[in-house]
Amino acid sequence: MKDKDIIKLKEQVYDANMALVRHKLVIFTFGNVSAIDRQKDVIAIKPSGVDYEKLKPQDMVLIDMDGNKLEEGLNPSSDTKTHIELYRAFENIRGVAHTHSRYATVFAQAILPIKCLGTTHADYFYGDIPCTEPITDSSIEGDYEKETGVLIIKTFKSLGLDYSHIKACLVGCHGSFTWGDSADDAVFASAILEEIAMQNLYTQLINPSVKSIKNTILDKHYKRKHGKDAYYGQKRSIYRAK
Amino acid sequence: MKDKDIIKLKEQVYDANMALVRHKLVIFTFGNVSAIDRQKDVIAIKPSGVDYEKLKPQDMVLIDMDGNKLEEGLNPSSDTKTHIELYRAFENIRGVAHTHSRYATVFAQAILPIKCLGTTHADYFYGDIPCTEPITDSSIEGDYEKETGVLIIKTFKSLGLDYSHIKACLVGCHGSFTWGDSADDAVFASAILEEIAMQNLYTQLINPSVKSIKNTILDKHYKRKHGKDAYYGQKRSIYRAK
Amino acid sequence: MKDKDIIKLKEQVYDANMALVRHKLVIFTFGNVSAIDRQKDVIAIKPSGVDYEKLKPQDMVLIDMDGNKLEEGLNPSSDTKTHIELYRAFENIRGVAHTHSRYATVFAQAILPIKCLGTTHADYFYGDIPCTEPITDSSIEGDYEKETGVLIIKTFKSLGLDYSHIKACLVGCHGSFTWGDSADDAVFASAILEEIAMQNLYTQLINPSVKSIKNTILDKHYKRKHGKDAYYGQKRSIYRAK
Amino acid sequence: MKDKDIIKLKEQVYDANMALVRHKLVIFTFGNVSAIDRQKDVIAIKPSGVDYEKLKPQDMVLIDMDGNKLEEGLNPSSDTKTHIELYRAFENIRGVAHTHSRYATVFAQAILPIKCLGTTHADYFYGDIPCTEPITDSSIEGDYEKETGVLIIKTFKSLGLDYSHIKACLVGCHGSFTWGDSADDAVFASAILEEIAMQNLYTQLINPSVKSIKNTILDKHYKRKHGKDAYYGQKRSIYRAK
Repeated sequence: MKDKDIIKLKEQVYDANMALVRHKLVIFTFGNVSAIDRQKDVIAIKPSGVDYEKLKPQDMVLIDMDGNKLEEGLNPSSDTKTHIELYRAFENIRGVAHTHSRYATVFAQAILPIKCLGTTHADYFYGDIPCTEPITDSSIEGDYEKETGVLIIKTFKSLGLDYSHIKACLVGCHGSFTWGDSADDAVFASAILEEIAMQNLYTQLINPSVKSIKNTILDKHYKRKHGKDAYYGQKRSIYRAK
Repeated sequence: MKDKDIIKLKEQVYDANMALVRHKLVIFTFGNVSAIDRQKDVIAIKPSGVDYEKLKPQDMVLIDMDGNKLEEGLNPSSDTKTHIELYRAFENIRGVAHTHSRYATVFAQAILPIKCLGTTHADYFYGDIPCTEPITDSSIEGDYEKETGVLIIKTFKSLGLDYSHIKACLVGCHGSFTWGDSADDAVFASAILEEIAMQNLYTQLINPSVKSIKNTILDKHYKRKHGKDAYYGQKRSIYRAK
Repeated sequence: MKDKDIIKLKEQVYDANMALVRHKLVIFTFGNVSAIDRQKDVIAIKPSGVDYEKLKPQDMVLIDMDGNKLEEGLNPSSDTKTHIELYRAFENIRGVAHTHSRYATVFAQAILPIKCLGTTHADYFYGDIPCTEPITDSSIEGDYEKETGVLIIKTFKSLGLDYSHIKACLVGCHGSFTWGDSADDAVFASAILEEIAMQNLYTQLINPSVKSIKNTILDKHYKRKHGKDAYYGQKRSIYRAK
Repeated sequence: MKDKDIIKLKEQVYDANMALVRHKLVIFTFGNVSAIDRQKDVIAIKPSGVDYEKLKPQDMVLIDMDGNKLEEGLNPSSDTKTHIELYRAFENIRGVAHTHSRYATVFAQAILPIKCLGTTHADYFYGDIPCTEPITDSSIEGDYEKETGVLIIKTFKSLGLDYSHIKACLVGCHGSFTWGDSADDAVFASAILEEIAMQNLYTQLINPSVKSIKNTILDKHYKRKHGKDAYYGQKRSIYRAK
């Protein structure tokens, strides 16, 4: 597709995938990032199993909302259907990232949420990061990657969470998915998630009885940075991944 | 302000902020450093939410002791009032640094002091690094950032600590503030704090019954490096941040 | 030997040994990689105790299946006989790597298997990574390095494991051996092993009661990437070490 | 001193001090390395409190066995008398290194020996690395740095250890001292010490009941690399610090 917006979308998705490497969130071919053009319902996503150092912007794979490839070329990420499911359910997001980053994956493997233990967490996520139950056997036998998305969405619903304020979910025994306003935002959320997972882990090791922070601190810090009363920064998006 | 001293102050504050990145004490826009000109009562501080890689010396924001901006331009750090409060109470300091560095934040989140477990600690801090209680709801509802400073000062007073020999405080559920003779010194204290927090954490994990070192070792090491009988170094400041 | 295939084999073995350094799996002279030409029964292996930074492709030592040197020059790795034993027993492998990488060695020292706790593991190894018992005194007194290979092979047999799907073994009190279709593949397996060992360790520290994942997830992820029904990637080897 | 051997000694000591930084064993001005010319009884040692990045070979301070400076110039390391004491008691060593490297210091702070848990350790140190008791108050009040050396020597004697096969000692509540045939060797021992301390710590966290390896494995590995029956390497010193 020669459409200027789509070429730009591919470049943004390429940049965001490379940012995973720069932030040390992936090794080898672990992880993938996508973005969606909401006007055209076109998704650009990393190709499956291609080394980051060989990746080029034009290698990003274009698909529609049913997962059909829109151009000749490489196969999309094997996790593509999870991304699509998130784009369907979380209507305002425009980027998704999936990693097996070290500390976030530790919590996913332990099947434990990342409790909000401090303002580093509260600055970016409005509460605990949930972890899904391990996926059921019938979901594995069915459309596994789609069902992974369904599981995330179900988990958010059952816990009454708002995807626009908690932009991350751990998948039990697996890894993390994060999202945001763009591919870049989704990677930024992954980087913050990894940092707070690390801090949370060691906090629990040194003080096993630690509890989530009180709502007043959570409110103060999250709302300093988000929403109409935010007073942090210079009145522009604070989400960026470098 | 075209004053030569102020231009130099901005450069020092810029350099110290960039040193946070070099010492891996911050990611993204976490953290901020300021310095004060005690003759003029002018503070230079990092602007709020600006990426370190885009930061320039002239971006440092000048404010007076009431937090009023002295020039057109970017907004100061959202933590500015905490800095001001520390400059008011700790009359001899001329630099303040705030970070969410990994291991120091772990202790802040665990609401535990960093006990002095060895000479690495005793060489730089004359005793345990205190951790404040989590801030009260009334302080959050009030002037939150100012109250964070008040809380640090209150903690030092109630524990009978001398800010000129313990140049760091953990804020419960939050992160660390450090200070010194300059912006550079404050960053140096943050870097040492992070190192000893890491060593302290693993020491406690491998030997949970470990106790603070005896006063005789603490005295010996701290006074080897500080005060009139110091015999370490080449008769110049040992505080520097590279 | 001026044979073109053998010169290429040496280059591959050299590259794979240098990849150990790049992946931070070795320091100093720890670790060694070899590859075999199955047509000629010639093995190329790292020389013993030579710094990686001084290593050249032509320094790789050529030996036959009895460990005899086929050229004048440096001595082969002291672990050569372990490599030979693995090539004898595991007939389809063409590369072997040995490291004391940090987290894998921790499990070897703890004499614990690396249980499969998540999909990061399941994507690459079809089940738990075994750890041998410490080697017996009679094996130490005998042909120690050969007996180390014998111990690995015996461990795989007694546990009913398939070396083509679990390409790694920990040796109790020692370190890890990994293998694959080439020297490069063997190093790739070492790198993945180290990553999953790290994730496994912290998972167990944060959740001591964690169990291996169920077979349905293991099957799904391993078979997404391996065997006739694999649908990950672009229809080429996913094993590579960069 | 214009003596060629002494100029070379200074260069070696300079290189070894810089190697501490390269191996990430020190930050700021932590740590120091010395070497001795046994013919001339002249010691070259790092100056006290000078940044590594500003250090030059000619800055190394020359002293005699009583600690007297042999040239005008910078002050020697504040730990100089500990080095001298080790040179006096351990007659065959020609280099000493002192660091507060992270994991070794953790054991020193925990006042625990580094037990020999695997072959990585056994390849370089012939048994557990001892940790001294915290220094006594009378030793602190006396000639503190000299007494630190005395404490190490006393610990080796009381445990019946041979300094030529265990080239490291932890000082309780403090850090590590290592030694060897040269400044370079002493740094190499520090680097290996740090690596095995890290592996030991995590081994104990994941398996608290782990025991030191049996003597047969210790013997095999240590003697593969040291002494008249060694068969590792290419018949040259295996000790080097890069």
